[in-house]
Amino acid sequence: MGSSDDSDLIEQHAEEEMGEKSRAASSSLLGGSSCREGHSSTQSSHRLLAYSDALISIIATVMILPVAHTKVESSEELRQSLQLLLSAKIGVYLMTFLIVTVAWAAHIRLFQVIVRIDDCLALLNLACMMLITFLPYTFSLMAMFPENILGMLLFCGCVMVIGIIQCVIVLYAFSHPFLLNEQIQISENQNFYKSHILKVIMRVPIMCFFASILSFIFFQLSYVLLAIVVFLPYISQTLKWCRSKAIGQVEESPDEVLFYTYLPSEPLSKERVEAFSDGVYAIVATLLILDICEDNVPDPAVVQQQFGGSLIAALREYGPEYLAYFGSFATVGLLWFVHHSLFLHVTKATRFMGLLNTFSLAFVGGLPLAYQLTHEFPHHSHNELEAIQISCVIVFFAGIFQLAIWVAALYSERESLHPDVWYGGREHVFMLAKLALYPCVTLGTFFLTCVLSEFSASIFHLMEITVPFAFLLLRLLVRIGLALLRLLFCPDRPELRCVVEEDADESRVSFNSVVT
Amino acid sequence: MGSSDDSDLIEQHAEEEMGEKSRAASSSLLGGSSCREGHSSTQSSHRLLAYSDALISIIATVMILPVAHTKVESSEELRQSLQLLLSAKIGVYLMTFLIVTVAWAAHIRLFQVIVRIDDCLALLNLACMMLITFLPYTFSLMAMFPENILGMLLFCGCVMVIGIIQCVIVLYAFSHPFLLNEQIQISENQNFYKSHILKVIMRVPIMCFFASILSFIFFQLSYVLLAIVVFLPYISQTLKWCRSKAIGQVEESPDEVLFYTYLPSEPLSKERVEAFSDGVYAIVATLLILDICEDNVPDPAVVQQQFGGSLIAALREYGPEYLAYFGSFATVGLLWFVHHSLFLHVTKATRFMGLLNTFSLAFVGGLPLAYQLTHEFPHHSHNELEAIQISCVIVFFAGIFQLAIWVAALYSERESLHPDVWYGGREHVFMLAKLALYPCVTLGTFFLTCVLSEFSASIFHLMEITVPFAFLLLRLLVRIGLALLRLLFCPDRPELRCVVEEDADESRVSFNSVVT
Repeated sequence: MGSSDDSDLIEQHAEEEMGEKSRAASSSLLGGSSCREGHSSTQSSHRLLAYSDALISIIATVMILPVAHTKVESSEELRQSLQLLLSAKIGVYLMTFLIVTVAWAAHIRLFQVIVRIDDCLALLNLACMMLITFLPYTFSLMAMFPENILGMLLFCGCVMVIGIIQCVIVLYAFSHPFLLNEQIQISENQNFYKSHILKVIMRVPIMCFFASILSFIFFQLSYVLLAIVVFLPYISQTLKWCRSKAIGQVEESPDEVLFYTYLPSEPLSKERVEAFSDGVYAIVATLLILDICEDNVPDPAVVQQQFGGSLIAALREYGPEYLAYFGSFATVGLLWFVHHSLFLHVTKATRFMGLLNTFSLAFVGGLPLAYQLTHEFPHHSHNELEAIQISCVIVFFAGIFQLAIWVAALYSERESLHPDVWYGGREHVFMLAKLALYPCVTLGTFFLTCVLSEFSASIFHLMEITVPFAFLLLRLLVRIGLALLRLLFCPDRPELRCVVEEDADESRVSFNSVVT
Repeated sequence: MGSSDDSDLIEQHAEEEMGEKSRAASSSLLGGSSCREGHSSTQSSHRLLAYSDALISIIATVMILPVAHTKVESSEELRQSLQLLLSAKIGVYLMTFLIVTVAWAAHIRLFQVIVRIDDCLALLNLACMMLITFLPYTFSLMAMFPENILGMLLFCGCVMVIGIIQCVIVLYAFSHPFLLNEQIQISENQNFYKSHILKVIMRVPIMCFFASILSFIFFQLSYVLLAIVVFLPYISQTLKWCRSKAIGQVEESPDEVLFYTYLPSEPLSKERVEAFSDGVYAIVATLLILDICEDNVPDPAVVQQQFGGSLIAALREYGPEYLAYFGSFATVGLLWFVHHSLFLHVTKATRFMGLLNTFSLAFVGGLPLAYQLTHEFPHHSHNELEAIQISCVIVFFAGIFQLAIWVAALYSERESLHPDVWYGGREHVFMLAKLALYPCVTLGTFFLTCVLSEFSASIFHLMEITVPFAFLLLRLLVRIGLALLRLLFCPDRPELRCVVEEDADESRVSFNSVVT
């Protein structure tokens, strides 16, 4: 009776598809089961997680704004001003991105254990979110005033409160076991799970507590401690891996602990990786239009005075910014498109893939800034060349890390990938081409601009315009490329193959013959 | 063969749940079916739509930024400066919000017909998105320079290109029928559907074309034409309704046209309403922290000079902004929570509910601004009182429109709602209490501040702190309230009822007895 009651709202989604027929039956069923409190409000956690992902993805990219709004004077050399930027703001951006994604990963881990929510958990989660959104600010205070312990204390305070709220969530969920993952629900040693999870969660706030105490005595050491907190999972994992290699133990984590293992192959909810990535791509794609909408609507008085009432002349001033917007929107959109194509074929995401995805997203975040720079300087200047090359480098790394996700997935293709894209599969070459397009093109552009520095802007614009069409025609291009390769490497019997073999085998054979 | 091939990737999601078992079977199935082009890349459209929703929700709220960044001098009277704001920027914000949601509704309608995508459609959709994100800017140009036809031409140009891309999408999808909705796929008069949909889509760009031509001759008239474009669905619907009332026809739209009917009861994808709302709530909740991260990290030199190196003193300057952030995050988060609870029980969303939701979201967008104002003025000033009252009004309307969604859903509760919350259902009273909490509390605060204007700030802060706890304890409060009502209205046999009747019936009976 109880458990059928709990899953009311989860079943609701299934009911929708079944139409109106089962409605009457279920309502009569419900009418007979009540008198129990608390359970009646159990809900699927799907939307709560989507909202959390949206919040976290916004907050992960927020520190790019101070970077983007730092005006580079066109008189200065770009290199100098960029060194200033690089030293402080970009570092802060990358660190906050990493910190927020660590908090996000902890959130995923928590809600892989707790799969249903009720009102109380939803409200606790909102409180947790509020503190997570405050983390970037406390961190940037810490970075701006490294000698002042206030920033450190605020940061540690936030992390500690987040940890305490997460513990409360775990305790609450374990006292209402119908909220938990099925595996834990049916498991006999629930208490063991509870203490294991609490131990893992509490590790971080406790270390922050020591860091905040240390900061009064010897604050340099507390930074070391904080760095350990952020990189803890990676460090402990590397140590374990080294030890296992040294001693020769193959598998040392007990089979029964499936959650909170910190193994690189620990599963990561694919939906949440997608939702978080979507959020970041969406924010980054619209970052420039936010500025344009706010700053680039000219004042009527200014137009009257400076441009003789000609709105077109006034808007022409902002030309570079529109170009930057369209360029960065298209590039971010296409990178999203590649990501989307890749994850359509991913069947299981792991922590390691999540980490690579984070690196890719961190580079994507810097893209609007880079594109804005490319159009800001006078033609043929040294600054313009450097800005264009920086843009190429950023897009290259964003693309390369996407490619790395795919390579990591290929290592365990039977679990992680759809058969279509397995090595030798029907779509394998096509997917490789999609993922390799941006890295190849930007690498080419980079070296071309090195050689033909006179025409760097034209080459860059040409790339921006060509790439979308290349994606549109990619299937055709891959086909042509394969045919050419076949002609080059095994030109003996092309007609025979075309007739006898199927398309899928065709591409597999030809690709393999090229590789070997 | 073909159709099994098409749904490969859609099946993939189902496969994941079924585990690894079916993998081998499906891969062997795939191996045997190829040689057909184009089909192999068919994908579920779920993530494309989620990404589009994220982009559109960001862009819908973007015009609130110029409003939020207009600094109100504390010397001026709030009323005066607000009138300036109201006249221009808030109007622009509300209009762009409406325009973008109209574009969003058109996008939903399109992708209710096209349920699967391939690479080509994904890229076309990205192009469409790029233009939609540009709409707010063109509209604000039009609003700032009403006498200059450039803004009008840009706006009309964007709308026309969006319309043309949508037409291309429709034509492409109808030439690859496996991308379409099942109902249309099996329908005999596909061509009728195609021409009907194209006709509806083309109506808007054609009107924009005439508006842009008219703008050269008589530009006032072209504004009228544009207004008609935006409100077209509502106008045509009202006219139809009036005619049907006047003549007495009950149902005049032919039964076969299920899509693009513009009836208020036309179904709207519930997932997309949720995704869009989540996006708006997430952006609005983080709007203030974006500013705080960017502007409120003090400069080390300034801290040294003005505050004698005391970071705490420097940060105390920003105190009101932190308060505003926490207040608005909590309020937006709780409004999201109410929205979430409501839509958990909604089984079918209609266009009318979507419209009410849009109004609610438009008010939510103004909330951070209002909260920022409440803390910016000196205590006990006239400005402070007005700012607090404006905040109350905005929260009140955001809540009232959520309540209106629920009332609209109750009118057709058998289709739109889960049986639990039907009139008389188990959760009905509780849901009503959740939805009514914010309107009631803000109304109360508003009148209290009118009477006790001396203590307006304390009352407001008290409300901010109380409401989250009220939500936590709401179930208890509702129970107590019902018990009290029962004691007041039927004090004769409380014990008997408690034993005999079930909880659900109890609340129904008592609630009904109160209403009647």
